[in-house]
Amino acid sequence: MLMLLSTLVLTIQTWSTLDRLHVIEIVVFVSLLCLCIILGHLLEENRWMNESITALLLGLCSGVVVLLASKGRNSHILQFDEELFFIYLLPPIIFNAGFQVKKKEFFRNFMAIMLFGVVGVFISFGIITAGTRYLFTKMGLKHLSMWDYLAIGTIFSATDSVCTLQVLNQDDTPLLYSLVFGEGVVNDATSVVLFRAVQNYNFDAYTAVEALDVAGNFLYLFFTSTVFGVSAGLLSAYIIKTLYFGRHSTDREIAIMTLMAYLSYLLAELCYLSGILTVFFCGIVMSHYTWHNVTEASRIATKHSFATMSFIAETFIFLYVGMDALDVDKWRMSKTSVGEFLGRFGILLLLVLVGRAAFVFPLSALSNYWTKSPTTKISLRHQVIIWWAGLMRGAVSIALAFNQFTEGGRTGSSDEATVITTTITIVLFSTIVFGTATKPLIGWLLPAHLKPLYHEDSDPPSPKDISVDSDIHVPLLLGASEADQEHNGVNFIINGLRRPSSITALLGASTSGIHRVWRNFDDAHMRPLFGGRGFVRQVSRRPTIPEDEPFEDSNSEE
Amino acid sequence: MLMLLSTLVLTIQTWSTLDRLHVIEIVVFVSLLCLCIILGHLLEENRWMNESITALLLGLCSGVVVLLASKGRNSHILQFDEELFFIYLLPPIIFNAGFQVKKKEFFRNFMAIMLFGVVGVFISFGIITAGTRYLFTKMGLKHLSMWDYLAIGTIFSATDSVCTLQVLNQDDTPLLYSLVFGEGVVNDATSVVLFRAVQNYNFDAYTAVEALDVAGNFLYLFFTSTVFGVSAGLLSAYIIKTLYFGRHSTDREIAIMTLMAYLSYLLAELCYLSGILTVFFCGIVMSHYTWHNVTEASRIATKHSFATMSFIAETFIFLYVGMDALDVDKWRMSKTSVGEFLGRFGILLLLVLVGRAAFVFPLSALSNYWTKSPTTKISLRHQVIIWWAGLMRGAVSIALAFNQFTEGGRTGSSDEATVITTTITIVLFSTIVFGTATKPLIGWLLPAHLKPLYHEDSDPPSPKDISVDSDIHVPLLLGASEADQEHNGVNFIINGLRRPSSITALLGASTSGIHRVWRNFDDAHMRPLFGGRGFVRQVSRRPTIPEDEPFEDSNSEE
Repeated sequence: MLMLLSTLVLTIQTWSTLDRLHVIEIVVFVSLLCLCIILGHLLEENRWMNESITALLLGLCSGVVVLLASKGRNSHILQFDEELFFIYLLPPIIFNAGFQVKKKEFFRNFMAIMLFGVVGVFISFGIITAGTRYLFTKMGLKHLSMWDYLAIGTIFSATDSVCTLQVLNQDDTPLLYSLVFGEGVVNDATSVVLFRAVQNYNFDAYTAVEALDVAGNFLYLFFTSTVFGVSAGLLSAYIIKTLYFGRHSTDREIAIMTLMAYLSYLLAELCYLSGILTVFFCGIVMSHYTWHNVTEASRIATKHSFATMSFIAETFIFLYVGMDALDVDKWRMSKTSVGEFLGRFGILLLLVLVGRAAFVFPLSALSNYWTKSPTTKISLRHQVIIWWAGLMRGAVSIALAFNQFTEGGRTGSSDEATVITTTITIVLFSTIVFGTATKPLIGWLLPAHLKPLYHEDSDPPSPKDISVDSDIHVPLLLGASEADQEHNGVNFIINGLRRPSSITALLGASTSGIHRVWRNFDDAHMRPLFGGRGFVRQVSRRPTIPEDEPFEDSNSEE
Repeated sequence: MLMLLSTLVLTIQTWSTLDRLHVIEIVVFVSLLCLCIILGHLLEENRWMNESITALLLGLCSGVVVLLASKGRNSHILQFDEELFFIYLLPPIIFNAGFQVKKKEFFRNFMAIMLFGVVGVFISFGIITAGTRYLFTKMGLKHLSMWDYLAIGTIFSATDSVCTLQVLNQDDTPLLYSLVFGEGVVNDATSVVLFRAVQNYNFDAYTAVEALDVAGNFLYLFFTSTVFGVSAGLLSAYIIKTLYFGRHSTDREIAIMTLMAYLSYLLAELCYLSGILTVFFCGIVMSHYTWHNVTEASRIATKHSFATMSFIAETFIFLYVGMDALDVDKWRMSKTSVGEFLGRFGILLLLVLVGRAAFVFPLSALSNYWTKSPTTKISLRHQVIIWWAGLMRGAVSIALAFNQFTEGGRTGSSDEATVITTTITIVLFSTIVFGTATKPLIGWLLPAHLKPLYHEDSDPPSPKDISVDSDIHVPLLLGASEADQEHNGVNFIINGLRRPSSITALLGASTSGIHRVWRNFDDAHMRPLFGGRGFVRQVSRRPTIPEDEPFEDSNSEE
């Protein structure tokens, strides 16, 4: 009996072996996440490393450890799950991007962003597809169909510019930051939509008429997704403004904002729209209206919670990609010689470089030709940085590749395994090698604007009293072409007078004219309905939250 | 070709049917959550309804809708997943409980809380097990083993006092609140541990020696889990204090706190400890040390994020339970006549009532006998409320019942199905009927202390300058037995002098003596190492976060 009892203590088990394994997986990942955060913090001032690279390398090391521990049998713990990625990890990242984006800059550069993010993807897609189809077949990869090459084209058009964004400073180079940032999101959306289109349609022949139709469908899809996201944001603003959750509970406010944003993403996906665009624009609208309607505590909490969720998701993704790199099964199945492998890797890398250059420089020239306003011209240095920012490949590529070339995580043929392993290698190489070189490169190209040694959300903001219409005496601006002189994207007024000496200035003036129209419309019609900045709730008692104590402890001594 | 293209637009699909179904499930639940939050807000001032009941009823209605829509075939969307509950939903709730608990009250009433939460569970377990075994077999349920009855005993000992807590006011009745709150958490922990013990050990005979051994093992388990949780909390405090994440990123701080808390829960479960106790004490320690070490923005953000996550998890659980109530498969399988069903339901309900009364009143008397200090005596009204608070059954009961009597959500026999359906009914009935009666009952028992019509986290706190040692002139306190006179749990000092006129006051004084010892130890040894209240980081630049703008928009006009 006593022995039985001691057995009791030793063998209390809640779950079956399977559940226990799942808990072990989660423990490993959460521990690695913690470690990654600590390391990332310690390496913050390092001139080479950033969070993404840290996570990737940590994942790699863990993968090695697991591989050795399981004696070469099993190199990863969590099976890469596209569902996990698309349903749980990607939405907070994109939503936070929309929530955080500097809206003024974003919309000012909207056309350029769309050019890069949409047209650029198509160009890059075309080059990579054609290039791989031609060169891979020459190299011996015979079992991939045209369909597979089209998928490869989309997979490698999906960029991951997070490394560059972590280095750039939003206040110092607002145009550049806004372009890289905005393009990153639109690029993700376009790649995913294009990928789905490729998956569901057999492009046997590609005529001009079909191309136009596809273009038309894309425009429709983009437009509808955007409208959907905007509507979701406005609805949340209206609900929160009208119902005043804050009267009873800040937590309800925060919950509603979070859930409605997530719901917008899911519904969009369910309706075959682009969830990425939807949740992005939902974030933009929420930060413009909804955020201002909630209590002060909710504002602080939401701002940081959204950023934290996004940060955790991103780190998790990189950790995962790193760990999955050593998926021995796929490497074994690939059956490629080292030479062949390096050859294909080299080809893809070259195509990525060329494909990106093929649209960044021409489209920048086009954008510069159109805009005329000196503040929105993209200098050559900036063009190089934009080109560089889009060389890195990340989780979206991995997710799409897994989607196309694996079934439940397993590849069917040696060629498919080759594509997977090549994708993983490109992602690792580009993120680690190019990513590490990013800080020095930007330091070299933009010497005055390298991110300060420390960066806090709490940096004193750029002076908030500079509005669009205030006077700033900057005698040299009009005609300046160096991005160095873009200070906070403010419309400069020389000596108190706007000096429309050319079409340049006229067009510059008209941009601010559009902005003025929007502001009037916003103030007159939108804000009364949806709240927004300056919203003051008409109640007799304005809540203030003393935040020294966690929970209004009545005793200051504990 | 054109037709094919239009088909393209119409049939773009990302996922297979299975994935799509999963997304639909999430959409339904997220939408219901939003609806629940809105309804809960609108009904906040209703004298009957509270959030849990709203969620439950909403879940029920949705279940009905789904049932009708699927023509009676399928009544629930998400399969009740104990893993989901224990791994994802329960930890944030318990952690937030620990994070939010008024520590002083909790530790002052620690013995009473342990009495109710541990001994009480055993008493109630014994009564329910014996009662059901005797009465159910008489009623025709022949296929349940002793093992099953023991499990039933633990299942129905797990209380859910959230309905009562939503009504009580922590500031008005701190002793009562602290007892109900603390007992709720300890009760959960004990029930789960006892359940696991029952599952893994066949109690063929039950001798006194075995009982002592089991008791010994429990103590060991509780002690170890507590130490583990405290260590995790202290580690997080040390890391954050030493590394100063806030220098670079508030988001890292928030992420580290959240992840380390979650990790503590998972590791405890993995090591066969009580994750509930671990994460609860981790929350207590974090709120005492770690929370004070982070930046101001992080403090606000974490406080509200943890509360929001807990709130969402709780609401989700009730929604789910409501929806699962109409699991037609189990109802059909149960093969019980209405009379039989009502008979068993009545028996269980009676046993719950009696089982609870069998320990609340005796143990309260015992506690009153021991404590002697008037501020910690439990009045009869309070005893009735404590008894009432533990009548409601919730998700833990459901989770344990599913664990014992279903395999992957399906029941094996008609008797098992009967237990499940009876459990669901008890949960629904107790939460809806008893829950609805809670507000009026407490209003009747404690007329002066019904929660004010509105409640905000942002209520001006009870004056924080009242410390343990400050003087308050309250001439009538010593000897007062009405809980009405417990104001904020402050140690009253009469006329500037402590008047130890009896053992009563001496024992009262000694409690504050223990507290004094702890404070000295805390100030001398713990806080230098782990931070805590009053922690001021030695840096030249103290971060301040301007929170008017979401993200330091350089332009005030947008």
